[in-house]
Amino acid sequence: MSEALPKRVRIVEVGPRDGLQNETQVIPTAVKLELIGLLAQAGLRNIEATAFVSPRWVPQMADHAELLGALHSGPHAETARYPVLTPNLRGYESARRAGAREVAVFAAASEAFSQKNINCSIAQSLQRFEPLMAAAQADGVAVRAYVSCAVGCPYSGPVAPAQVAALAAELKQMGCYEISLGDTIGVGTPGQIRQLLDAVAAQVPMACLAGHFHDTYGQAVANVYAALECGMTVFDASVAGLGGCPYAPGASGNVATEELVYLCQGLDIETGVDLQQLLAAGAYICAQLGRVNPSKLARAMATK
Amino acid sequence: MSEALPKRVRIVEVGPRDGLQNETQVIPTAVKLELIGLLAQAGLRNIEATAFVSPRWVPQMADHAELLGALHSGPHAETARYPVLTPNLRGYESARRAGAREVAVFAAASEAFSQKNINCSIAQSLQRFEPLMAAAQADGVAVRAYVSCAVGCPYSGPVAPAQVAALAAELKQMGCYEISLGDTIGVGTPGQIRQLLDAVAAQVPMACLAGHFHDTYGQAVANVYAALECGMTVFDASVAGLGGCPYAPGASGNVATEELVYLCQGLDIETGVDLQQLLAAGAYICAQLGRVNPSKLARAMATK
Repeated sequence: MSEALPKRVRIVEVGPRDGLQNETQVIPTAVKLELIGLLAQAGLRNIEATAFVSPRWVPQMADHAELLGALHSGPHAETARYPVLTPNLRGYESARRAGAREVAVFAAASEAFSQKNINCSIAQSLQRFEPLMAAAQADGVAVRAYVSCAVGCPYSGPVAPAQVAALAAELKQMGCYEISLGDTIGVGTPGQIRQLLDAVAAQVPMACLAGHFHDTYGQAVANVYAALECGMTVFDASVAGLGGCPYAPGASGNVATEELVYLCQGLDIETGVDLQQLLAAGAYICAQLGRVNPSKLARAMATK
Repeated sequence: MSEALPKRVRIVEVGPRDGLQNETQVIPTAVKLELIGLLAQAGLRNIEATAFVSPRWVPQMADHAELLGALHSGPHAETARYPVLTPNLRGYESARRAGAREVAVFAAASEAFSQKNINCSIAQSLQRFEPLMAAAQADGVAVRAYVSCAVGCPYSGPVAPAQVAALAAELKQMGCYEISLGDTIGVGTPGQIRQLLDAVAAQVPMACLAGHFHDTYGQAVANVYAALECGMTVFDASVAGLGGCPYAPGASGNVATEELVYLCQGLDIETGVDLQQLLAAGAYICAQLGRVNPSKLARAMATK
């Protein structure tokens, strides 16, 4: 090995939220609960369950309160954490009423993306989080942050690592316990990931950073490997690679959790996840969506 | 960067042979010629064109002589090399009659695979090459070698790097100018690739080794990256990721040339290949096969 790799990696499964939110057909709550149950059974301990956003914007997540309530009274409530996405104080309060114990906020590292996606500047988006952060701190609720467009922006092109580092430092400073660096459009290659992590880790400890790599250009597993070499130990992934890219219809979604787990197994890195059970979870949701499993590994292993 | 990466990589495009040989529908010679022409136009200089095997075994390659003749009188004859696969002296002689200037042989690093695939031991397979090697040396024809099952075998499981190293050294000794290490069933992860290359490069100079990574488990791009870190500079790839795995029906084929080129671009490594023209070649053959492009990158860029 060129550099010592971590012994253990924590996976944040984002399939039920980041994966399903791109689906046009509304998925019944019972199906989501079954999926999340299978994921928890496979050993995943951090499962982003839903988003507390307006049902007018994301109808897929309209059942957020019901879903979270069921999870918190479900069989894995003691072992699994179910963070939820909350874009603002209103979403946070609604998530709290539904019993949320951990939330996630998101900001973009690109001004153009911030303007087009959430209609405000990066600085304004951080201001909006302030009351949320204050409430979460008072409530003892952990807040995770997503930084989107950490490598490239669909509107303005490449994003400078220094810009991402400054934003990540600010989010850490505001009280976020972990900053997930998202290559939202999947344009990064391992060299860029190294440059990104070098820059960000100079301002935020690597232990507080996570990688969120989309597989749009087939680079996600390689990017995870480069990040592992940099000492990163937390990765977001989506079962079966669910979740497309709104900027490239038909494109791939997040790195498939199956392929991440397989990579780690091959590198003797513990994930706590049982690959066979994970494959069962992926097969279940793909059958429900009436879709060929987007994960190459899942397709190969289904034929064994 | 942890280790200095190469400045330039040579790509051996194997789509027309390794990719198409798995297709059940026989593809017209004119379509193959058009594909190879588009690949050459995109800047690929090493294109494995066909195999001189019995049409009874591989009907897809029955047009080998006609195809190679056309290529050698075609527009890229001066700039592109068209190696062909030759399993034995008979195939070699037939390839020579058709004008072949470079050939490739193949051996397996797994005894079980050698027995099941070519019905003889590894040692016997090398003996069979001897007359071929002698003829090629007399003719001044360069011989490349493929070592299959360099990481794992579908019958006997993991393959020891030392076993691959010994076979590669023997093939080099016999006169092969380059040894392509094939992860035929795509089971490897970057740690295994590093161990493999450490072992083989101790016996054969890295400059005489190539990587041939299948993407069955979604690890191929990561494996190329790990190999680049080890100083490897030659990679086999298949346009659109053509070529399945006979041991896992429905599984992916070789690393997609598009994704390899994109990786190299991101790492500032020259390939001499124009990605847009390469995408056109992939789109052409996928349309001819009536198939969704298997390359994630190709699907993402098709929607731009």
